[in-house]
Amino acid sequence: MKYSSDAVEKAIHELSKLPGVGRKSAQRHVFYLLKQSENDVQQLADALLELKSKVRNCSVCFNITENDPCPICTSEKRDRSVICVVEEANDVLALEKTGECRGLYHVLGGALSPLDGIGPDDLRVKELLQRLTEEVKEIIIATNPNTEGEATALYLAKLIKPMNIKISRIARGIPVGADLEYADEITLARAIEGRLEY
Amino acid sequence: MKYSSDAVEKAIHELSKLPGVGRKSAQRHVFYLLKQSENDVQQLADALLELKSKVRNCSVCFNITENDPCPICTSEKRDRSVICVVEEANDVLALEKTGECRGLYHVLGGALSPLDGIGPDDLRVKELLQRLTEEVKEIIIATNPNTEGEATALYLAKLIKPMNIKISRIARGIPVGADLEYADEITLARAIEGRLEY
Repeated sequence: MKYSSDAVEKAIHELSKLPGVGRKSAQRHVFYLLKQSENDVQQLADALLELKSKVRNCSVCFNITENDPCPICTSEKRDRSVICVVEEANDVLALEKTGECRGLYHVLGGALSPLDGIGPDDLRVKELLQRLTEEVKEIIIATNPNTEGEATALYLAKLIKPMNIKISRIARGIPVGADLEYADEITLARAIEGRLEY
Repeated sequence: MKYSSDAVEKAIHELSKLPGVGRKSAQRHVFYLLKQSENDVQQLADALLELKSKVRNCSVCFNITENDPCPICTSEKRDRSVICVVEEANDVLALEKTGECRGLYHVLGGALSPLDGIGPDDLRVKELLQRLTEEVKEIIIATNPNTEGEATALYLAKLIKPMNIKISRIARGIPVGADLEYADEITLARAIEGRLEY
């Protein structure tokens, strides 16, 4: 069933392109927007356009930023001997929230996935290798703990190991607050494997 | 935790105003949009602005429309003796999908809710009464089957009954495909109360 209004149909179509937004949610958004003032909708549209025009990738670490290089890469307070490698820019935010990463970042722009035709040349691997000067002492690989992320981690580890740089992978294990009973076997196996001594 | 980029923060803030969109979803949307072409984002922004500038309320039934009066109100195929009263414009769409409503509509713009300070003057009740010419033979009240919707239905029924117009309320009962076992008592009671003879 389509609306008789083209403008409504077009807005639903555009909104339902957003991740996790189906036709039904897009419809809800449209009815919500129709109830808002013209000014409110203008603000939303402006924010989206500004986002696209102002935000770019840092030319060093490929994190999103308004100033190139980004504030993390230019900060004098960061430990420049550690680079934490992540898949996407939003992973940087997640790690920054913990306050545990005091080094720099490198955003790969995805993970290896031969089935989807994504090889090392499609990721920013070359750019990472170029950053591995004498200053860099450790690489922390923080790709996602799924098939693609693990494959990427292994690939990078093999590539960087001969360069005499310490290379580590974030721990996989039981999430804090979770129940052992409901953890899957692989996670549980990893948790025992990666146990820490008191 | 905030992003260092103001443009990202602003876009997250604006997107999270949409119904059912929290900070986390808004964040996902922003990262999705950052990966799209400038043209795609422009299209989304344009669609939202066009929505607001082109779509208005029909001056007769208050459904959303690009042309006033709306295609339903001007259609010669509709049964002008029946008016189906609903709370919101999206209810019209839901009813149109069924193909069972061959009459006209009237969008109240909400339901009575004394706790929220919404009285009859805040709804389009006066406008409904003005439409009740001799031509109109039946009013179907299709407000939501919750406290506010039922109160609104009762209020309208009392108001219109003396005018010698047939007035009906959509049936409340077990949804098609549902299980009797899991239906709540009130719904089940209504289903028995509203039973139909074969």
